[in-house]
Amino acid sequence: MDALKALQTELAAFAADRDWDKFHTPKNLAMALSGEAGELLEHFQWLTPEQSELGALPSDTLQGIEEEMADVLLYLLRLADRLNINLEAAANAKLQLNAVKYPVEKAKGNAVKYSRRGE
Amino acid sequence: MDALKALQTELAAFAADRDWDKFHTPKNLAMALSGEAGELLEHFQWLTPEQSELGALPSDTLQGIEEEMADVLLYLLRLADRLNINLEAAANAKLQLNAVKYPVEKAKGNAVKYSRRGE
Amino acid sequence: MDALKALQTELAAFAADRDWDKFHTPKNLAMALSGEAGELLEHFQWLTPEQSELGALPSDTLQGIEEEMADVLLYLLRLADRLNINLEAAANAKLQLNAVKYPVEKAKGNAVKYSRRGE
Amino acid sequence: MDALKALQTELAAFAADRDWDKFHTPKNLAMALSGEAGELLEHFQWLTPEQSELGALPSDTLQGIEEEMADVLLYLLRLADRLNINLEAAANAKLQLNAVKYPVEKAKGNAVKYSRRGE
Repeated sequence: MDALKALQTELAAFAADRDWDKFHTPKNLAMALSGEAGELLEHFQWLTPEQSELGALPSDTLQGIEEEMADVLLYLLRLADRLNINLEAAANAKLQLNAVKYPVEKAKGNAVKYSRRGE
Repeated sequence: MDALKALQTELAAFAADRDWDKFHTPKNLAMALSGEAGELLEHFQWLTPEQSELGALPSDTLQGIEEEMADVLLYLLRLADRLNINLEAAANAKLQLNAVKYPVEKAKGNAVKYSRRGE
Repeated sequence: MDALKALQTELAAFAADRDWDKFHTPKNLAMALSGEAGELLEHFQWLTPEQSELGALPSDTLQGIEEEMADVLLYLLRLADRLNINLEAAANAKLQLNAVKYPVEKAKGNAVKYSRRGE
Repeated sequence: MDALKALQTELAAFAADRDWDKFHTPKNLAMALSGEAGELLEHFQWLTPEQSELGALPSDTLQGIEEEMADVLLYLLRLADRLNINLEAAANAKLQLNAVKYPVEKAKGNAVKYSRRGE
């Protein structure tokens, strides 16, 4: 995930150049990330599931969604930088955990995970 | 961002193996991402900004934060896959946009961006 | 909204009795409210719109939803108390604003509001 | 909470007049509520805890916060209406639960609740 790491470094320089590190406490970055996730949500809130699919979304809505997703990633990388977290390793670890938690033979064809909230 | 793309492909296979694509509509994935962002937030909500910094966070809190961040990234990648979005390109484009929007000479030493909400 | 005001006063006493005012800054309360909204979201994220309706929700899911909604209201009241906001007046003012923004004759039968994100 | 109930009834009529009930599924209302909570968050994200207090907030920020809080309440009432939930009773029940969970003598002077995430 060299490109991800490169982006993280670039973002750190971007913030340092502007004296923004004082604003970018982990607490504040978590808030900003959550705010962007809320904006992402707003694009989808009145759509049916079918209307939210790639083929059905108007191009300007899709463009807006792409920008909110970029914002979420940028704040995620900024937060990873401030907390010295290796996002790629963390995501891979979580995926391995999920593979154990939801084995194909048990998960397939039923929705045991999806009968409860969250993960 | 080969590793990011590899993770995205692995996640798509993970969902397909479990017949989860019916749950993973873009609308639902945006909700799941936002739910994980909310869980991330909860780790920070009662901390002072100083307590949220790397040196001050208890290791189990940091571990929890890392896991929520992994969840956010996994749903972001799943959503990018369903909407055929190139996350790396989108993040780079947004960063270039921000560079124009917040030039160093104007942004430095004041907090014009930070006097208003959001971005 | 006497009962709402009474609840707000009771909550203020609850926090004071426990020395929790230092945690209950407006910033932190907004985070806590948003975290609870995220938990509410998680109950709905994998449901179809039809499955989210009153007649279709399992009773334990409905119970969980009710508790998250109570949490959202409690934090909203706590925040209103800290910022000296009259929630009832604010909600009525917003409703009047919406009546002007979305007149029946224009809003009915089309979804102009719902063709864009948010409000 | 007669005024709250009155507002809930008024909102139901407002939606019915505009044929909006098809958009107002519980799933969609939970998303809209969470989106508004995200907008509320954005007002606070770059502020210090001190800057978020009543005396320190600029009046236009306070006005914006009040409007987002109104939006959260309106969607909460709409959702309560669709799920036939008595919000006042639910909030009172939760408060009683919290009184048992956090007795004054144990909660006071330490922050046992606040050493973990969420509630």
